[in-house]
Amino acid sequence: MRENGRTARFDLDAVLAAGFLCHLGVLVDGVPMVVPTVYGATADTLYLHGSAASRSLVASPEATVCVTVTHVDGLVLARSVFEHSVNYRCAMVYGVPRVVTGEEEKLEGLRVLSQQAAPGQWEYARQPNRKELAATTLLALDLDEVSVKISAGPPDDGEGPDAALGLWAGELPLTATWGVPVPDPALAPGIAVPAHVAARAGTVAG
Amino acid sequence: MRENGRTARFDLDAVLAAGFLCHLGVLVDGVPMVVPTVYGATADTLYLHGSAASRSLVASPEATVCVTVTHVDGLVLARSVFEHSVNYRCAMVYGVPRVVTGEEEKLEGLRVLSQQAAPGQWEYARQPNRKELAATTLLALDLDEVSVKISAGPPDDGEGPDAALGLWAGELPLTATWGVPVPDPALAPGIAVPAHVAARAGTVAG
Repeated sequence: MRENGRTARFDLDAVLAAGFLCHLGVLVDGVPMVVPTVYGATADTLYLHGSAASRSLVASPEATVCVTVTHVDGLVLARSVFEHSVNYRCAMVYGVPRVVTGEEEKLEGLRVLSQQAAPGQWEYARQPNRKELAATTLLALDLDEVSVKISAGPPDDGEGPDAALGLWAGELPLTATWGVPVPDPALAPGIAVPAHVAARAGTVAG
Repeated sequence: MRENGRTARFDLDAVLAAGFLCHLGVLVDGVPMVVPTVYGATADTLYLHGSAASRSLVASPEATVCVTVTHVDGLVLARSVFEHSVNYRCAMVYGVPRVVTGEEEKLEGLRVLSQQAAPGQWEYARQPNRKELAATTLLALDLDEVSVKISAGPPDDGEGPDAALGLWAGELPLTATWGVPVPDPALAPGIAVPAHVAARAGTVAG
């Protein structure tokens, strides 16, 4: 099988650590709503920026949500259209999210989230003040009910009858790369790109 | 405003055309499930590969689903952590999906889907036979109830009090790029990468 459900904690941590954007599924008036939002993971907790989902959470505080993190690694180009597929790594987390209210945990959760998306910015930029903290909805989800799927490798039909077609088959990799930082046009002259930002240019994300 | 809800049909078409992977939100036993799947869009219909959602669709054939397509364009690095955000393009489509059963529409929908993810492969590879068609779950969703959000540009705090902090601020772009095709190790010698695949290497996806 090209695609494997994984249960190892190692796989979950790796998939979550490789990204910063998830798709959060919540119920709104009985209909699923899927919104992109940023997240950060600790050993046992997933922190999510929750503003887009806040209406649903207020209406249904005990409702289970689903958080899905997907990294697309490439296309699998097979001899037959039917065997075409996508190489990807995907983690799904289910749970009843907790709205983080304690100031200390909120700061720590936001630090985790910030550090995952933009390493170094938490220390470099001005950290949230009380008013900003209060205006931020942070959700916490236990990393208890999780599943990981990883699909990798070449197509499956290399040994089958379609191999005789003489068609090319293989993988077309897809890679997300950080680019060169673009200064804010409002930036005053003489302010250099900090090293922790400059160092990311050209590196692979995910 | 950095972030704008868009209503123009032009924006929807552009966001959908820029990708091939969506996150499909369906209800399973009353809980939202968010699964990645491939899609293809025509002027009025979104076709989705529906195998992962098929259990839910059989159980609740009249249920509304949400399909979200998100392209992450970069990080917005502001002077304050609070003003940090993500530049992205996102389309959300709501509707009751139709399971495509007619052979003609199923072939056409799969062609659209294949053409969007892997242009040229529909003509190059062996097309689905009747048995494969029957084994494929294809969903169709009308492009009626849609919303598009696009967030772009520099951070918002260039004119505010935080500008006096003298910190660097700007965007860190993120770009997904197709790589060099990797031949299937099972490939017989002498089969060249077809031009439509080779031409994608180094081009931007999304």
